[in-house]
Amino acid sequence: MNLSRRRFGSHVTGAAVGATLAACGAEGADDTSSKRALVLVHGSWFGAWCFSSIIPLLTAKNITVVAPDLPGHATGARFPASFIQRPIDYAAFGSEPSPLAGIGLAQYVSTIQQTIDQLAAAGFGPITLLGHSMAGIPITAVAEQAPSKIAKLIYLSAFMPVTAKPVQAYLTLSQNSASQVLAQLKADPATVGALRFDTNSVNPADITGLKSAFSADSSDLDWAAISHMMQPDDPAQPYGTPTGATAKNWGSVKRAYIGCTSDNVIPPALQQLFISEADTLTPSNKTDFHAFASSHTPFVSQPAAIAALIASLIA
Amino acid sequence: MNLSRRRFGSHVTGAAVGATLAACGAEGADDTSSKRALVLVHGSWFGAWCFSSIIPLLTAKNITVVAPDLPGHATGARFPASFIQRPIDYAAFGSEPSPLAGIGLAQYVSTIQQTIDQLAAAGFGPITLLGHSMAGIPITAVAEQAPSKIAKLIYLSAFMPVTAKPVQAYLTLSQNSASQVLAQLKADPATVGALRFDTNSVNPADITGLKSAFSADSSDLDWAAISHMMQPDDPAQPYGTPTGATAKNWGSVKRAYIGCTSDNVIPPALQQLFISEADTLTPSNKTDFHAFASSHTPFVSQPAAIAALIASLIA
Repeated sequence: MNLSRRRFGSHVTGAAVGATLAACGAEGADDTSSKRALVLVHGSWFGAWCFSSIIPLLTAKNITVVAPDLPGHATGARFPASFIQRPIDYAAFGSEPSPLAGIGLAQYVSTIQQTIDQLAAAGFGPITLLGHSMAGIPITAVAEQAPSKIAKLIYLSAFMPVTAKPVQAYLTLSQNSASQVLAQLKADPATVGALRFDTNSVNPADITGLKSAFSADSSDLDWAAISHMMQPDDPAQPYGTPTGATAKNWGSVKRAYIGCTSDNVIPPALQQLFISEADTLTPSNKTDFHAFASSHTPFVSQPAAIAALIASLIA
Repeated sequence: MNLSRRRFGSHVTGAAVGATLAACGAEGADDTSSKRALVLVHGSWFGAWCFSSIIPLLTAKNITVVAPDLPGHATGARFPASFIQRPIDYAAFGSEPSPLAGIGLAQYVSTIQQTIDQLAAAGFGPITLLGHSMAGIPITAVAEQAPSKIAKLIYLSAFMPVTAKPVQAYLTLSQNSASQVLAQLKADPATVGALRFDTNSVNPADITGLKSAFSADSSDLDWAAISHMMQPDDPAQPYGTPTGATAKNWGSVKRAYIGCTSDNVIPPALQQLFISEADTLTPSNKTDFHAFASSHTPFVSQPAAIAALIASLIA
């Protein structure tokens, strides 16, 4: 309940019930309890489509939810020409520059900031910002650049890089050795400018390899649908760009971390490294950690349970 | 502003400003001016993903938006085995039964009703229900079965069948002769139980044919992304099931129709036939028609303009 001067203003001094009721009705839209908003940001190879099972469930809990597609994703995806050809020429696919190579972290940040600004302009708040997987990079950068606009960050089995190192430097650490992602790449990101899978592969080893990495707790039929929606290329630049997080800015925002316990994309050991580094940066604002028993895609395998946990964590 | 007894209840009789303020704050979430909700229902071969550019724009206009995936769509899509193989065997693709053949209109209706009921239970209202393309069938059926739950219907270049004929009976009429959809089907719907495209085709004639039907005003690159997200099969049953619309129930709900003027899926002549039949059924509640200059996919080609029009039409 918002008891600020703005809400009730001079009407209270009138002390007439009628005037008070009028004020109540006129500014009811500003009541924060009815304007909580959640921005969901998808990870690499995915789009906002990955959240469509949980958005109705979250809205039913009185949370307004917006999930933008990041630049170069979903209906904005672009494909190497070699991906379209079947049977595929893996030599060409392994070397063709990505049409998404020019997309950098700043463009992701801009899209997220625009979404937040639109919500704020419409009177929504407090605003919680959730990033899944790779989206931990841009949500960290957004919170660094505009901490006052965000009431809380939720990292959903996400990168949470707050040191001078970009995420790509974490991928070769021992804490990431259980990740099954790098083995599935069909091209060198440094060569093509993207992290590239063959999401349309008819090779059983590719299909089972990607499913094992992303969604081992989903059925084969569910995985076929997810894989069909995934895009082959994801821009490499954001993996190579530090977020610039500081204790003063990013560290002033409350944060929770949902760690998927059977995550073969961002393994629990890497999750804990990010949390450890974050808590070292902000010892008086520690990460609120919640383990969740699932693969990297709980919104597909357990939508009701993950929606309930997310709802319990928003600002 | 809601002045119902529930809103203020017995607190008014107390006449104390403090008590009134408490009631105001506690039930501020019921203020209808801040709780308008819009349910967006996608059409055939698509999922909620098609709306992701317009949802943030609509939310910025203070409308809470939910777009469920219909059963058998998006992450619930299922594929004929012959679709996965490349090069494709078109004889097999032309005869393999669809794994979606068992999905009927009742299942679409159930998903939409559940979404509406969840919003209503969370205090949202008035609720506007928008259907794109094929989704005109289930939103008509939902409004027939529960007219009191829906404040307004918006048909976005959609089927609006209110006679005893199912939609499939309209597809062979002269008013549909400009539609380019039937020519793209790769199987007889009566044989396979689905309307089937080869959305992954590498044949230039297939690619340009589908683009011309759905999205002639999008770039080739945009179309490649849309086509990649589309699914090959869409259940045939809902096309063969009358909606049961009556003047008493369906006809009691206000409706608007946005007709895309360059629509090669549901051509303007067929749009006007539906409107004519609807207005004959409910002469005192006529269709509020708005022409929109675009292909069948304005949410991709003109998201800001179509979002503004939709926002102006909701209840």
